[in-house]
Amino acid sequence: MSHMTKVAILGGSGYTAAELIKILLRHPRVRIEVVTSRQEGTPAVAELHPSLLGRIDLRCEPFDPDALKRRGVECAFGCLPHGVSAESVKPLLERGIRVVDLSADYRIRDPKVFEAYYGEPPHDLGNLSRAVYGLPELYGDRLRDAALVANPGCYPQTGILGLAPLVANNLIELKGIIVNSVSGISGAGRTPKLTYHFPECNESVMAYNVGKHRHTPEMEQALGDLADQPVEVLFVPHLVPMDRGIHSTIYATPVRPLKEPELTALYRDYYANASFVRVRETMPATKDTAHTNFLDVSVKVARGKIVVLACEDNLVRGASGVAVQNFNRMFGYQETAGLL
Amino acid sequence: MSHMTKVAILGGSGYTAAELIKILLRHPRVRIEVVTSRQEGTPAVAELHPSLLGRIDLRCEPFDPDALKRRGVECAFGCLPHGVSAESVKPLLERGIRVVDLSADYRIRDPKVFEAYYGEPPHDLGNLSRAVYGLPELYGDRLRDAALVANPGCYPQTGILGLAPLVANNLIELKGIIVNSVSGISGAGRTPKLTYHFPECNESVMAYNVGKHRHTPEMEQALGDLADQPVEVLFVPHLVPMDRGIHSTIYATPVRPLKEPELTALYRDYYANASFVRVRETMPATKDTAHTNFLDVSVKVARGKIVVLACEDNLVRGASGVAVQNFNRMFGYQETAGLL
Amino acid sequence: MSHMTKVAILGGSGYTAAELIKILLRHPRVRIEVVTSRQEGTPAVAELHPSLLGRIDLRCEPFDPDALKRRGVECAFGCLPHGVSAESVKPLLERGIRVVDLSADYRIRDPKVFEAYYGEPPHDLGNLSRAVYGLPELYGDRLRDAALVANPGCYPQTGILGLAPLVANNLIELKGIIVNSVSGISGAGRTPKLTYHFPECNESVMAYNVGKHRHTPEMEQALGDLADQPVEVLFVPHLVPMDRGIHSTIYATPVRPLKEPELTALYRDYYANASFVRVRETMPATKDTAHTNFLDVSVKVARGKIVVLACEDNLVRGASGVAVQNFNRMFGYQETAGLL
Amino acid sequence: MSHMTKVAILGGSGYTAAELIKILLRHPRVRIEVVTSRQEGTPAVAELHPSLLGRIDLRCEPFDPDALKRRGVECAFGCLPHGVSAESVKPLLERGIRVVDLSADYRIRDPKVFEAYYGEPPHDLGNLSRAVYGLPELYGDRLRDAALVANPGCYPQTGILGLAPLVANNLIELKGIIVNSVSGISGAGRTPKLTYHFPECNESVMAYNVGKHRHTPEMEQALGDLADQPVEVLFVPHLVPMDRGIHSTIYATPVRPLKEPELTALYRDYYANASFVRVRETMPATKDTAHTNFLDVSVKVARGKIVVLACEDNLVRGASGVAVQNFNRMFGYQETAGLL
Repeated sequence: MSHMTKVAILGGSGYTAAELIKILLRHPRVRIEVVTSRQEGTPAVAELHPSLLGRIDLRCEPFDPDALKRRGVECAFGCLPHGVSAESVKPLLERGIRVVDLSADYRIRDPKVFEAYYGEPPHDLGNLSRAVYGLPELYGDRLRDAALVANPGCYPQTGILGLAPLVANNLIELKGIIVNSVSGISGAGRTPKLTYHFPECNESVMAYNVGKHRHTPEMEQALGDLADQPVEVLFVPHLVPMDRGIHSTIYATPVRPLKEPELTALYRDYYANASFVRVRETMPATKDTAHTNFLDVSVKVARGKIVVLACEDNLVRGASGVAVQNFNRMFGYQETAGLL
Repeated sequence: MSHMTKVAILGGSGYTAAELIKILLRHPRVRIEVVTSRQEGTPAVAELHPSLLGRIDLRCEPFDPDALKRRGVECAFGCLPHGVSAESVKPLLERGIRVVDLSADYRIRDPKVFEAYYGEPPHDLGNLSRAVYGLPELYGDRLRDAALVANPGCYPQTGILGLAPLVANNLIELKGIIVNSVSGISGAGRTPKLTYHFPECNESVMAYNVGKHRHTPEMEQALGDLADQPVEVLFVPHLVPMDRGIHSTIYATPVRPLKEPELTALYRDYYANASFVRVRETMPATKDTAHTNFLDVSVKVARGKIVVLACEDNLVRGASGVAVQNFNRMFGYQETAGLL
Repeated sequence: MSHMTKVAILGGSGYTAAELIKILLRHPRVRIEVVTSRQEGTPAVAELHPSLLGRIDLRCEPFDPDALKRRGVECAFGCLPHGVSAESVKPLLERGIRVVDLSADYRIRDPKVFEAYYGEPPHDLGNLSRAVYGLPELYGDRLRDAALVANPGCYPQTGILGLAPLVANNLIELKGIIVNSVSGISGAGRTPKLTYHFPECNESVMAYNVGKHRHTPEMEQALGDLADQPVEVLFVPHLVPMDRGIHSTIYATPVRPLKEPELTALYRDYYANASFVRVRETMPATKDTAHTNFLDVSVKVARGKIVVLACEDNLVRGASGVAVQNFNRMFGYQETAGLL
Repeated sequence: MSHMTKVAILGGSGYTAAELIKILLRHPRVRIEVVTSRQEGTPAVAELHPSLLGRIDLRCEPFDPDALKRRGVECAFGCLPHGVSAESVKPLLERGIRVVDLSADYRIRDPKVFEAYYGEPPHDLGNLSRAVYGLPELYGDRLRDAALVANPGCYPQTGILGLAPLVANNLIELKGIIVNSVSGISGAGRTPKLTYHFPECNESVMAYNVGKHRHTPEMEQALGDLADQPVEVLFVPHLVPMDRGIHSTIYATPVRPLKEPELTALYRDYYANASFVRVRETMPATKDTAHTNFLDVSVKVARGKIVVLACEDNLVRGASGVAVQNFNRMFGYQETAGLL
């Protein structure tokens, strides 16, 4: 029988943890060994997430890095809030357990940029330089040896992958890029707040954090890596009344006149080996990507601008799916394992 | 110029208060003099409810019955939770201010029944007997002189008005009645909880409080008044993913064979003078009643049962609209004033 | 390498076909060989269903039973409307190709009952007696040798499985059973009509076909098999604004007093070997079953009635998932293959 | 008793007609005399729109301009598709009946621009020059004497009013303006199509007509009027799963550095006398404007761009509400009559 990689999920009560469990239960080479939670007591995972009834018998347990090591856990998925997450990552790395961290703690390489957006310095400066930004299409070759992967934010993946072919080929101006995104409400997490109370956000659309959202620097960092010079993104997110799905409409100024067919060909070429990026000529709808790890992208030209349309499922491709994609690369499994 | 009746709204931060304000702003003979709130400070009403921006300049203020009296308030609408509400009603009645109480505090005449469902005795036994149950189609002639009106629950109105013609005419068995209802999420109020968190209740339907919901005794009391003997209702409510709207499907056993046309005629006759009950032959949809004070009802016969379909807007007809309908009868205004 | 069973999907443009393809793509022992469509031309499957982009390369083709035989198709899934479906089933059975028919053509054994509900006699009387009603929990042992499986309707599964433990144990009266159901709009299929136009059915609930719905006789037939005498069901379906999910609230009269714990134990026992029925004590929500083949059921006692709450995903458990469950039993695969 | 203006509604079966009727029923000085429809027979208006049961007794009738004249109709509201609408407008104007036309037939002054976007020349060149573009905040003083008002499109109002203070004050570059909008599905009308079929568009977001939407030239024309030179707008609309509501996020490049407070002050000043524009500092949500004639706007500065957030109810402010606002100005009624 083939080797099963034992994994732990840290912070089991939220949406990304539930999604991760569903994906990993389909993964032929993974065994979920531990689910931790900061909740009182040791609730059954399926009690927190009734959709998992009959699928998983584990109970949540408190975080204990030694126990994880003892029980043979080779990889931990961190589904904790930023700040809290780093406190778990440190002892795990010390014990040689690899981590895919879904929080923001290790995403931003420049501590000053992190502080500017998060209002406090990074929580684990010591391990920051070891972290690989977990966007497999751009940083995939660094994942095999990564001890720590900073799983990317949901919005940034649409912005980065939507723009990468243009930036990598020096086709657009690097200032004045606009990423106008909408997201389903699950992107806000599972903690009840008035803003996400059904009768408040149903039948409504609203922008928030205009130009100040914390996902901005992620996009600028990754696109800056591609451009080898600073990139400036104006990012405006909105809430729309649906469970899941992110749709980004991206506006960029071409440095020379470009036609749609050549752009589509360029995108197809750029993503020729990407298992989970689908370049389309039709308009992508978030529903086409719902419950999948695909990111759909289409590129248009209008009024002198390039308009890129990119969408994904924020919980799968935007969080737990790409986490497994990263895990697969880290552990040498087929990239699509558990994800189709 | 015609006399304007000054009113106060107690508990201004919830959905029923907002709806009430919208209705009263259209009422040609009402002036909203005071809005109270138990919130910190004195937030502008339009800050709590941005939909009211530009419509109302009042700020919320703490509850002060003497000030209300002094400022000429003749009627107060109580939009407070049960228990809390009675504490405001008492001093108002003492000062001769009439009250339409939207809470459950005065709905149930029998203190033991109240206690059985609410887990505690009624909060104001002294005024209980003065309260008129504010279902204008049944108790309308008692409203003119009422100092205190117990505004009915949202679900019960569909159950009571859906069954009244049958019960009043002794056409059905009084045991074994089933009221199967679904409600939009605004019925649960404005306080965020996991159950009403958008990603939890969107795209989902769930029953709750099967046979134990607090609206059961309201239906049994009013139908018992009509039958002049006890009536037993099995009430099962469900949450459905929409903002507003209640749809009740009611099952009753006829005491003799009855045909749909005669039943429809009976309903038409029974509600001939009711301004806000629409007897239909087509299937009523909650959307047909959304943002109106109408309660739509249709009656069918199938498999030996009478099946009544009744629906309404839970915030208008189910709460604030019927409150104004009650108010209109109390103060001698046209029943439809502000409501069309 | 293990044997792959080649299958065909007939009628590839609707929701059940898309769902079936998604499930079968995950099935380790199935190869989708053919997808047929009555549409003009030979559109790519992924053009009809953009969610399948990159997942399936087939184009739709016209139905040709000889070609199916020649290409080694062993099983066909019929996703065509009733009437149309029988015309495809006949030539397939003649050629020794087994069929799981998702239409209603072979569900009702009594031609008179079929005619009473469908307004015309069954379309293929000759094969009617060969059909096994594909509810694996009740008819599972007949599936292994079935040439033709009549896949059950979406609503009936909740009604039948929700009541089976009670009926099989003679615990309830067989007249006066009420099945009150709500369904997401995908249950109505993919053909645009005003009733399913977004602004009509969103934010609305409406009953339809009160006591006359075509799924009534399916429930009565299967429950009659269990009771060995006629069973009478009053079935009232409703539309609710969500994509998928059916929730049924079932009312039955016990023949002797019964308590919830013993009923729950009875249900647990009855479904001890059922892979896809989850007996719960908590309230089942359709979301708990969304995108799964599980049917969740909970049983309550209130006001002298037994109230059963049952829910499922109408496209998976209600159609394409149970079709694969049937297929797995027909072909000797693990019952859960492709379904977890 | 005060004079009642008799009006006709042409094309009574769609959403804008239903909304218009609801508004006009509240208008103290209007009597709906005629509702026409191109449907078979003479269906009752309340049969087409069950929400109007008990509110209006009229039946639809065929369009007959002489009869309208004879019966004293002074104003007709055209709710017909473009092309069809002009055919009704012509005979009405000839008979001296004033028209508020909700179609696009008279919105674009330049026939070539119309043809470029609509694929055919304007349908009534003769009356084109008589038409006043019915955006009261900009063209209000021309409405009093207008025989023909071209009611504006839903999207353009957010774009035009969102940008007007900036353009009128020469504060932004007139090229490179981006209007990124989302709309609820009612904006697509009442004719069922696959794109608007509930299970297709629910839980989904999709862009359409990128840079090619017919509302583009309306925005460019009105903003060009303000700038007195050509303005170029890249307009990208999207569908979001809600009934009603448009939210536009508008990006413009300031010609000199500007701060949010001064911009907000500028907007407040510009709209000081506008009854239905609410300048806010908080983020406007479409829900705040739902079922009202208000257009909410907020202005931000980020990354060197001005970002304007504007929203409205597409059926009220975006169509029927502004039509009544125009009517009120045409006939000398208070601008808010029927609209609060």
